[in-house]
Amino acid sequence: MTTVAILGGAGPQGRGLARRFAAAGVEVILGSRTAERALAAADELTEEVGGEITGADNGTAARVGDIVLVVVPWEGHAALLGSLAEELRGKLVVDCVNPLGFDKAGPYALPVLEGSAAEQARALLPESTVVAAFHHLSAVVLDDPDVDSIDADVLVLGDDDVAVDRVIDLAGMLPGVRGVFGGRLRNAQQVEALTANLIAINRRYRVHAGIRVTDV
Amino acid sequence: MTTVAILGGAGPQGRGLARRFAAAGVEVILGSRTAERALAAADELTEEVGGEITGADNGTAARVGDIVLVVVPWEGHAALLGSLAEELRGKLVVDCVNPLGFDKAGPYALPVLEGSAAEQARALLPESTVVAAFHHLSAVVLDDPDVDSIDADVLVLGDDDVAVDRVIDLAGMLPGVRGVFGGRLRNAQQVEALTANLIAINRRYRVHAGIRVTDV
Repeated sequence: MTTVAILGGAGPQGRGLARRFAAAGVEVILGSRTAERALAAADELTEEVGGEITGADNGTAARVGDIVLVVVPWEGHAALLGSLAEELRGKLVVDCVNPLGFDKAGPYALPVLEGSAAEQARALLPESTVVAAFHHLSAVVLDDPDVDSIDADVLVLGDDDVAVDRVIDLAGMLPGVRGVFGGRLRNAQQVEALTANLIAINRRYRVHAGIRVTDV
Repeated sequence: MTTVAILGGAGPQGRGLARRFAAAGVEVILGSRTAERALAAADELTEEVGGEITGADNGTAARVGDIVLVVVPWEGHAALLGSLAEELRGKLVVDCVNPLGFDKAGPYALPVLEGSAAEQARALLPESTVVAAFHHLSAVVLDDPDVDSIDADVLVLGDDDVAVDRVIDLAGMLPGVRGVFGGRLRNAQQVEALTANLIAINRRYRVHAGIRVTDV
Protein backbone atom coordinates (compact mmCIF):
# COMPACT_ATOMS: atom_id res chain seq x y z
CA MET A 1 0.00 0.00 0.00
CA THR A 2 1.46 3.33 -1.09
CA THR A 3 1.23 6.39 1.11
CA VAL A 4 1.28 9.70 -0.74
CA ALA A 5 2.67 12.66 1.18
CA ILE A 6 1.77 16.13 -0.08
CA LEU A 7 4.16 18.85 1.07
CA GLY A 8 2.30 22.14 0.99
CA GLY A 9 -0.84 20.10 1.27
CA ALA A 10 -2.88 22.75 3.04
CA GLY A 11 -2.78 25.06 0.00
CA PRO A 12 -5.48 24.89 -2.69
CA GLN A 13 -3.55 22.66 -5.13
CA GLY A 14 -2.42 20.32 -2.35
CA ARG A 15 -5.90 20.11 -0.86
CA GLY A 16 -7.35 19.36 -4.27
CA LEU A 17 -4.88 16.56 -4.96
CA ALA A 18 -5.37 15.14 -1.45
CA ARG A 19 -9.13 15.12 -1.92
CA ARG A 20 -8.89 13.23 -5.18
CA PHE A 21 -6.29 10.70 -4.08
CA ALA A 22 -8.15 9.98 -0.85
CA ALA A 23 -11.39 9.52 -2.79
CA ALA A 24 -9.53 7.02 -4.98
CA GLY A 25 -8.56 5.01 -1.92
CA VAL A 26 -4.96 6.20 -1.58
CA GLU A 27 -3.55 6.82 1.90
CA VAL A 28 -2.64 10.52 2.07
CA ILE A 29 -0.60 12.50 4.54
CA LEU A 30 -0.82 16.27 4.19
CA GLY A 31 2.29 18.20 5.12
CA SER A 32 2.34 21.85 6.11
CA ARG A 33 4.64 24.25 7.92
CA THR A 34 2.97 23.34 11.19
CA ALA A 35 1.33 20.07 12.14
CA GLU A 36 -1.68 22.06 13.40
CA ARG A 37 -2.36 23.59 10.01
CA ALA A 38 -1.96 20.24 8.28
CA LEU A 39 -4.17 18.44 10.77
CA ALA A 40 -6.88 21.09 10.41
CA ALA A 41 -6.85 20.70 6.62
CA ALA A 42 -6.79 16.90 6.91
CA ASP A 43 -9.73 16.88 9.32
CA GLU A 44 -11.75 19.14 7.06
CA LEU A 45 -11.07 16.94 4.04
CA THR A 46 -11.75 13.70 5.90
CA GLU A 47 -15.13 15.04 6.91
CA GLU A 48 -15.93 15.87 3.29
CA VAL A 49 -14.36 12.94 1.46
CA GLY A 50 -13.85 10.17 3.98
CA GLY A 51 -10.83 8.04 3.16
CA GLU A 52 -7.44 8.01 4.80
CA ILE A 53 -6.13 11.55 5.19
CA THR A 54 -3.92 12.62 8.02
CA GLY A 55 -1.69 15.66 8.58
CA ALA A 56 1.75 16.46 9.96
CA ASP A 57 4.53 18.99 9.62
CA ASN A 58 6.29 18.78 6.25
CA GLY A 59 9.28 16.89 7.68
CA THR A 60 7.15 14.16 9.21
CA ALA A 61 5.03 13.91 6.08
CA ALA A 62 8.20 13.55 3.98
CA ARG A 63 9.41 10.72 6.23
CA VAL A 64 6.09 8.86 6.16
CA GLY A 65 5.28 9.14 2.46
CA ASP A 66 6.39 6.54 -0.09
CA ILE A 67 5.73 9.03 -2.86
CA VAL A 68 6.19 12.66 -1.85
CA LEU A 69 4.46 15.38 -3.85
CA VAL A 70 5.93 18.87 -3.57
CA VAL A 71 3.17 21.45 -3.98
CA VAL A 72 4.63 24.41 -2.09
CA PRO A 73 4.79 27.96 -3.47
CA TRP A 74 7.89 28.53 -5.59
CA GLU A 75 9.18 31.07 -3.06
CA GLY A 76 9.61 28.34 -0.45
CA HIS A 77 10.74 25.54 -2.77
CA ALA A 78 14.52 25.63 -2.37
CA ALA A 79 14.49 26.26 1.38
CA LEU A 80 12.04 23.46 2.09
CA LEU A 81 13.69 20.83 -0.08
CA GLY A 82 17.16 21.81 1.10
CA SER A 83 16.01 21.19 4.67
CA LEU A 84 14.45 17.78 3.89
CA ALA A 85 17.23 16.02 1.97
CA GLU A 86 17.63 13.53 4.82
CA GLU A 87 13.90 12.73 5.12
CA LEU A 88 13.57 12.38 1.34
CA ARG A 89 16.58 10.08 0.85
CA GLY A 90 15.65 7.14 -1.34
CA LYS A 91 12.12 8.47 -1.95
CA LEU A 92 10.24 9.18 -5.11
CA VAL A 93 9.75 12.95 -5.07
CA VAL A 94 7.20 14.44 -7.48
CA ASP A 95 7.78 18.12 -8.09
CA CYS A 96 4.55 19.92 -9.04
CA VAL A 97 5.79 23.49 -8.64
CA ASN A 98 5.42 26.23 -11.28
CA PRO A 99 7.89 29.12 -10.89
CA LEU A 100 5.66 32.00 -11.99
CA GLY A 101 5.56 35.71 -11.47
CA PHE A 102 2.56 38.01 -11.83
CA ASP A 103 2.35 41.67 -12.76
CA LYS A 104 -0.20 43.98 -14.35
CA ALA A 105 0.14 42.17 -17.69
CA GLY A 106 -0.58 38.82 -16.04
CA PRO A 107 1.46 35.69 -15.37
CA TYR A 108 4.94 34.96 -16.67
CA ALA A 109 7.64 32.34 -16.17
CA LEU A 110 10.40 33.12 -13.70
CA PRO A 111 13.96 32.17 -14.63
CA VAL A 112 15.39 29.33 -12.53
CA LEU A 113 19.13 28.92 -12.12
CA GLU A 114 18.95 25.12 -12.31
CA GLY A 115 16.65 25.29 -15.37
CA SER A 116 13.39 24.37 -13.67
CA ALA A 117 11.87 23.72 -10.26
CA ALA A 118 12.23 19.99 -10.91
CA GLU A 119 15.93 20.30 -11.74
CA GLN A 120 16.40 22.44 -8.64
CA ALA A 121 14.79 19.64 -6.64
CA ARG A 122 17.15 17.13 -8.24
CA ALA A 123 20.14 19.29 -7.35
CA LEU A 124 18.99 19.64 -3.74
CA LEU A 125 18.01 15.98 -3.37
CA PRO A 126 20.82 13.96 -4.95
CA GLU A 127 19.73 10.78 -3.16
CA SER A 128 16.07 11.01 -4.14
CA THR A 129 14.44 10.17 -7.47
CA VAL A 130 12.79 13.31 -8.83
CA VAL A 131 9.90 13.27 -11.27
CA ALA A 132 7.95 16.34 -12.45
CA ALA A 133 4.17 16.13 -12.84
CA PHE A 134 0.75 17.61 -11.98
CA HIS A 135 1.60 21.13 -13.22
CA HIS A 136 -1.52 21.84 -15.25
CA LEU A 137 -4.42 20.69 -13.10
CA SER A 138 -6.67 23.51 -11.94
CA ALA A 139 -6.76 23.74 -8.15
CA VAL A 140 -10.34 24.96 -8.42
CA VAL A 141 -11.41 21.92 -10.42
CA LEU A 142 -9.45 19.49 -8.23
CA ASP A 143 -11.02 20.86 -5.07
CA ASP A 144 -14.58 21.07 -6.43
CA PRO A 145 -16.61 18.11 -5.16
CA ASP A 146 -19.18 18.74 -7.90
CA VAL A 147 -16.66 17.90 -10.64
CA ASP A 148 -16.83 14.13 -11.14
CA SER A 149 -14.26 13.86 -13.90
CA ILE A 150 -11.31 16.09 -14.77
CA ASP A 151 -10.76 16.67 -18.48
CA ALA A 152 -6.96 16.87 -18.53
CA ASP A 153 -3.79 14.89 -19.02
CA VAL A 154 -0.85 15.06 -16.64
CA LEU A 155 2.56 15.27 -18.28
CA VAL A 156 5.05 13.17 -16.31
CA LEU A 157 8.74 13.95 -16.81
CA GLY A 158 11.76 12.16 -15.48
CA ASP A 159 14.93 10.25 -16.16
CA ASP A 160 14.03 7.09 -14.21
CA ASP A 161 11.56 5.04 -16.22
CA VAL A 162 10.27 3.02 -13.27
CA ALA A 163 9.60 6.18 -11.26
CA VAL A 164 7.94 7.82 -14.26
CA ASP A 165 5.66 4.83 -14.70
CA ARG A 166 4.67 4.90 -11.01
CA VAL A 167 3.68 8.55 -11.34
CA ILE A 168 1.82 7.89 -14.59
CA ASP A 169 -0.18 5.27 -12.67
CA LEU A 170 -0.71 7.68 -9.79
CA ALA A 171 -2.01 10.38 -12.15
CA GLY A 172 -4.39 7.84 -13.64
CA MET A 173 -6.08 7.46 -10.25
CA LEU A 174 -7.49 10.98 -10.55
CA PRO A 175 -10.93 10.68 -12.17
CA GLY A 176 -10.80 11.42 -15.90
CA VAL A 177 -7.07 12.11 -15.81
CA ARG A 178 -4.44 10.30 -17.81
CA GLY A 179 -0.72 10.35 -17.10
CA VAL A 180 1.41 10.75 -20.22
CA PHE A 181 5.20 10.57 -20.40
CA GLY A 182 6.31 14.09 -21.21
CA GLY A 183 10.08 13.85 -21.66
CA ARG A 184 13.23 13.94 -19.57
CA LEU A 185 13.70 16.25 -16.60
CA ARG A 186 15.78 18.69 -18.64
CA ASN A 187 12.58 19.48 -20.54
CA ALA A 188 10.61 20.35 -17.39
CA GLN A 189 11.03 24.12 -17.58
CA GLN A 190 8.60 24.66 -20.42
CA VAL A 191 6.03 22.35 -18.85
CA GLU A 192 6.16 24.31 -15.60
CA ALA A 193 6.11 27.63 -17.45
CA LEU A 194 3.18 26.62 -19.64
CA THR A 195 1.03 27.13 -16.57
CA ALA A 196 1.41 30.87 -17.23
CA ASN A 197 -0.24 30.32 -20.62
CA LEU A 198 -3.04 28.29 -19.07
CA ILE A 199 -3.69 31.10 -16.60
CA ALA A 200 -3.78 33.57 -19.51
CA ILE A 201 -6.24 31.26 -21.26
CA ASN A 202 -8.36 31.04 -18.11
CA ARG A 203 -8.55 34.80 -17.92
CA ARG A 204 -9.40 35.28 -21.59
CA TYR A 205 -12.03 32.56 -21.87
CA ARG A 206 -13.19 32.46 -18.23
CA VAL A 207 -12.48 28.74 -17.96
CA HIS A 208 -10.29 26.34 -16.02
CA ALA A 209 -8.14 25.15 -18.90
CA GLY A 210 -6.15 21.94 -18.98
CA ILE A 211 -4.35 20.17 -21.78
CA ARG A 212 -4.83 16.85 -23.52
CA VAL A 213 -2.16 15.23 -25.64
CA THR A 214 -3.69 14.00 -28.89
CA ASP A 215 -2.88 10.80 -30.80
CA VAL A 216 -1.65 9.06 -27.60
CA MET B 1 -8.72 38.24 -50.14
CA THR B 2 -5.77 37.42 -47.89
CA THR B 3 -2.52 36.06 -49.32
CA VAL B 4 -0.50 33.94 -46.93
CA ALA B 5 3.25 33.89 -47.50
CA ILE B 6 5.22 31.03 -45.97
CA LEU B 7 8.93 31.77 -45.54
CA GLY B 8 10.79 28.47 -45.47
CA GLY B 9 7.83 27.06 -47.32
CA ALA B 10 9.78 24.35 -49.12
CA GLY B 11 10.55 22.53 -45.85
CA PRO B 12 8.21 19.85 -44.47
CA GLN B 13 6.34 22.12 -42.02
CA GLY B 14 5.96 24.87 -44.59
CA ARG B 15 4.82 22.46 -47.29
CA GLY B 16 2.30 20.96 -44.89
CA LEU B 17 0.84 24.34 -43.96
CA ALA B 18 0.79 25.44 -47.61
CA ARG B 19 -1.07 22.28 -48.60
CA ARG B 20 -3.73 22.79 -45.96
CA PHE B 21 -4.24 26.51 -46.54
CA ALA B 22 -4.44 26.05 -50.30
CA ALA B 23 -6.94 23.23 -49.84
CA ALA B 24 -9.00 25.62 -47.70
CA GLY B 25 -9.07 28.16 -50.53
CA VAL B 26 -6.39 30.52 -49.24
CA GLU B 27 -3.99 32.09 -51.72
CA VAL B 28 -0.49 30.90 -50.75
CA ILE B 29 2.95 32.03 -51.78
CA LEU B 30 5.80 29.75 -50.75
CA GLY B 31 9.08 31.46 -50.03
CA SER B 32 12.46 29.76 -50.12
CA ARG B 33 16.12 30.73 -50.39
CA THR B 34 15.84 30.56 -54.17
CA ALA B 35 12.82 31.16 -56.34
CA GLU B 36 13.59 27.91 -58.20
CA ARG B 37 13.29 25.80 -55.06
CA ALA B 38 10.08 27.58 -54.05
CA LEU B 39 8.56 27.24 -57.50
CA ALA B 40 9.39 23.54 -57.64
CA ALA B 41 7.68 22.96 -54.29
CA ALA B 42 4.71 25.11 -55.34
CA ASP B 43 4.29 23.23 -58.62
CA GLU B 44 4.41 19.90 -56.85
CA LEU B 45 1.79 20.99 -54.34
CA THR B 46 -0.46 22.56 -56.96
CA GLU B 47 -0.49 19.29 -58.85
CA GLU B 48 -1.51 17.43 -55.69
CA VAL B 49 -3.89 19.89 -54.09
CA GLY B 50 -4.98 22.33 -56.77
CA GLY B 51 -5.70 25.75 -55.34
CA GLU B 52 -3.63 28.89 -55.54
CA ILE B 53 -0.01 28.15 -54.65
CA THR B 54 2.89 29.99 -56.15
CA GLY B 55 6.55 30.31 -55.19
CA ALA B 56 9.25 32.98 -54.96
CA ASP B 57 12.40 33.83 -53.08
CA ASN B 58 11.74 34.66 -49.42
CA GLY B 59 12.05 38.41 -50.01
CA THR B 60 9.44 38.46 -52.76
CA ALA B 61 7.14 36.20 -50.78
CA ALA B 62 7.46 38.53 -47.78
CA ARG B 63 6.51 41.52 -49.97
CA VAL B 64 3.51 39.78 -51.53
CA GLY B 65 1.98 38.19 -48.43
CA ASP B 66 -0.59 39.93 -46.26
CA ILE B 67 0.11 37.48 -43.48
CA VAL B 68 3.65 36.13 -43.45
CA LEU B 69 4.37 32.83 -41.70
CA VAL B 70 7.98 32.22 -40.68
CA VAL B 71 8.73 28.49 -40.78
CA VAL B 72 12.49 28.51 -41.31
CA PRO B 73 14.93 26.44 -39.25
CA TRP B 74 15.99 28.23 -36.08
CA GLU B 75 19.57 28.45 -37.32
CA GLY B 76 18.50 30.81 -40.10
CA HIS B 77 15.84 32.74 -38.19
CA ALA B 78 17.72 35.85 -37.11
CA ALA B 79 19.62 36.31 -40.38
CA LEU B 80 16.52 35.95 -42.53
CA LEU B 81 14.28 38.25 -40.50
CA GLY B 82 17.06 40.80 -40.08
CA SER B 83 17.36 40.97 -43.86
CA LEU B 84 13.61 41.35 -44.46
CA ALA B 85 12.69 44.17 -42.06
CA GLU B 86 11.87 46.41 -45.01
CA GLU B 87 9.71 43.85 -46.84
CA LEU B 88 7.87 42.98 -43.63
CA ARG B 89 7.12 46.55 -42.57
CA GLY B 90 3.46 46.90 -41.56
CA LYS B 91 2.79 43.19 -42.05
CA LEU B 92 1.37 40.59 -39.74
CA VAL B 93 4.26 38.19 -39.16
CA VAL B 94 3.45 34.82 -37.62
CA ASP B 95 6.48 33.17 -36.06
CA CYS B 96 6.20 29.37 -36.04
CA VAL B 97 9.80 28.56 -35.16
CA ASN B 98 10.89 26.24 -32.34
CA PRO B 99 14.48 26.79 -31.15
CA LEU B 100 15.45 23.19 -30.38
CA GLY B 101 18.64 21.21 -30.13
CA PHE B 102 19.05 17.45 -30.43
CA ASP B 103 21.61 15.12 -28.89
CA LYS B 104 21.78 11.45 -27.91
CA ALA B 105 19.20 12.01 -25.16
CA GLY B 106 16.76 13.57 -27.62
CA PRO B 107 15.36 17.06 -28.13
CA TYR B 108 15.81 20.01 -25.80
CA ALA B 109 15.03 23.72 -25.81
CA LEU B 110 17.80 26.10 -26.84
CA PRO B 111 18.23 29.31 -24.87
CA VAL B 112 17.32 32.45 -26.84
CA LEU B 113 18.78 35.81 -25.89
CA GLU B 114 15.53 37.67 -26.59
CA GLY B 115 13.52 35.06 -24.66
CA SER B 116 11.96 33.23 -27.60
CA ALA B 117 12.04 33.06 -31.38
CA ALA B 118 8.92 35.23 -31.46
CA GLU B 119 10.48 37.90 -29.26
CA GLN B 120 13.60 37.79 -31.43
CA ALA B 121 11.34 38.40 -34.43
CA ARG B 122 9.73 41.34 -32.65
CA ALA B 123 13.13 42.81 -31.86
CA LEU B 124 14.27 42.45 -35.48
CA LEU B 125 10.98 43.69 -36.96
CA PRO B 126 9.98 46.73 -34.92
CA GLU B 127 7.57 47.91 -37.63
CA SER B 128 5.78 44.59 -38.06
CA THR B 129 3.15 43.01 -35.84
CA VAL B 130 4.48 39.70 -34.56
CA VAL B 131 2.27 36.84 -33.43
CA ALA B 132 3.48 33.35 -32.45
CA ALA B 133 1.51 30.28 -33.54
CA PHE B 134 1.55 26.88 -35.28
CA HIS B 135 4.32 25.42 -33.11
CA HIS B 136 2.79 22.07 -32.29
CA LEU B 137 1.38 20.76 -35.56
CA SER B 138 3.12 17.67 -36.86
CA ALA B 139 4.68 18.26 -40.26
CA VAL B 140 4.00 14.62 -41.10
CA VAL B 141 0.31 14.96 -40.33
CA LEU B 142 0.00 18.33 -42.10
CA ASP B 143 1.61 16.99 -45.24
CA ASP B 144 -0.27 13.67 -45.31
CA PRO B 145 -3.12 13.88 -47.84
CA ASP B 146 -4.76 10.85 -46.20
CA VAL B 147 -5.36 12.79 -42.96
CA ASP B 148 -8.71 14.56 -43.36
CA SER B 149 -8.82 16.21 -39.96
CA ILE B 150 -6.03 17.24 -37.60
CA ASP B 151 -6.72 16.60 -33.92
CA ALA B 152 -4.89 19.58 -32.41
CA ASP B 153 -5.30 23.13 -31.20
CA VAL B 154 -2.99 25.96 -32.21
CA LEU B 155 -1.94 28.28 -29.41
CA VAL B 156 -1.83 31.86 -30.71
CA LEU B 157 0.25 34.36 -28.72
CA GLY B 158 0.60 38.06 -29.18
CA ASP B 159 0.18 41.53 -27.79
CA ASP B 160 -2.07 42.90 -30.55
CA ASP B 161 -5.58 41.55 -30.10
CA VAL B 162 -6.69 42.21 -33.68
CA ALA B 163 -3.66 40.39 -35.07
CA VAL B 164 -4.16 37.52 -32.63
CA ASP B 165 -7.77 37.16 -33.72
CA ARG B 166 -6.76 37.10 -37.40
CA VAL B 167 -4.34 34.26 -36.69
CA ILE B 168 -6.92 32.40 -34.59
CA ASP B 169 -9.21 32.59 -37.63
CA LEU B 170 -6.39 31.46 -39.92
CA ALA B 171 -5.65 28.45 -37.70
CA GLY B 172 -9.32 27.55 -37.79
CA MET B 173 -9.08 27.10 -41.57
CA LEU B 174 -6.95 24.00 -41.07
CA PRO B 175 -9.32 21.01 -40.94
CA GLY B 176 -10.03 19.92 -37.37
CA VAL B 177 -7.81 22.61 -35.92
CA ARG B 178 -8.89 25.31 -33.51
CA GLY B 179 -6.96 28.48 -32.76
CA VAL B 180 -6.86 29.35 -29.05
CA PHE B 181 -5.41 32.50 -27.53
CA GLY B 182 -2.33 31.35 -25.62
CA GLY B 183 -1.06 34.47 -23.88
CA ARG B 184 1.17 37.44 -24.55
CA LEU B 185 4.38 37.20 -26.56
CA ARG B 186 6.53 37.18 -23.43
CA ASN B 187 5.06 33.74 -22.74
CA ALA B 188 6.07 32.33 -26.14
CA GLN B 189 9.28 30.62 -25.00
CA GLN B 190 7.59 27.73 -23.24
CA VAL B 191 5.16 27.21 -26.10
CA GLU B 192 8.03 26.95 -28.57
CA ALA B 193 10.03 24.74 -26.22
CA LEU B 194 7.10 22.42 -25.55
CA THR B 195 7.73 21.03 -29.02
CA ALA B 196 10.69 19.19 -27.48
CA ASN B 197 8.26 17.42 -25.16
CA LEU B 198 5.95 16.57 -28.03
CA ILE B 199 8.87 15.04 -29.91
CA ALA B 200 9.78 13.03 -26.80
CA ILE B 201 6.16 11.88 -26.62
CA ASN B 202 6.22 10.95 -30.31
CA ARG B 203 9.28 8.80 -29.75
CA ARG B 204 7.94 7.08 -26.65
CA TYR B 205 4.46 6.33 -27.97
CA ARG B 206 5.24 6.22 -31.71
CA VAL B 207 2.61 8.85 -32.47
CA HIS B 208 2.32 12.34 -33.91
CA ALA B 209 1.21 14.11 -30.76
CA GLY B 210 -0.57 17.43 -30.63
CA ILE B 211 -2.27 19.26 -27.80
CA ARG B 212 -5.84 20.27 -27.11
CA VAL B 213 -6.79 22.88 -24.55
CA THR B 214 -9.68 21.60 -22.44
CA ASP B 215 -12.65 23.57 -21.10
CA VAL B 216 -12.34 26.18 -23.89
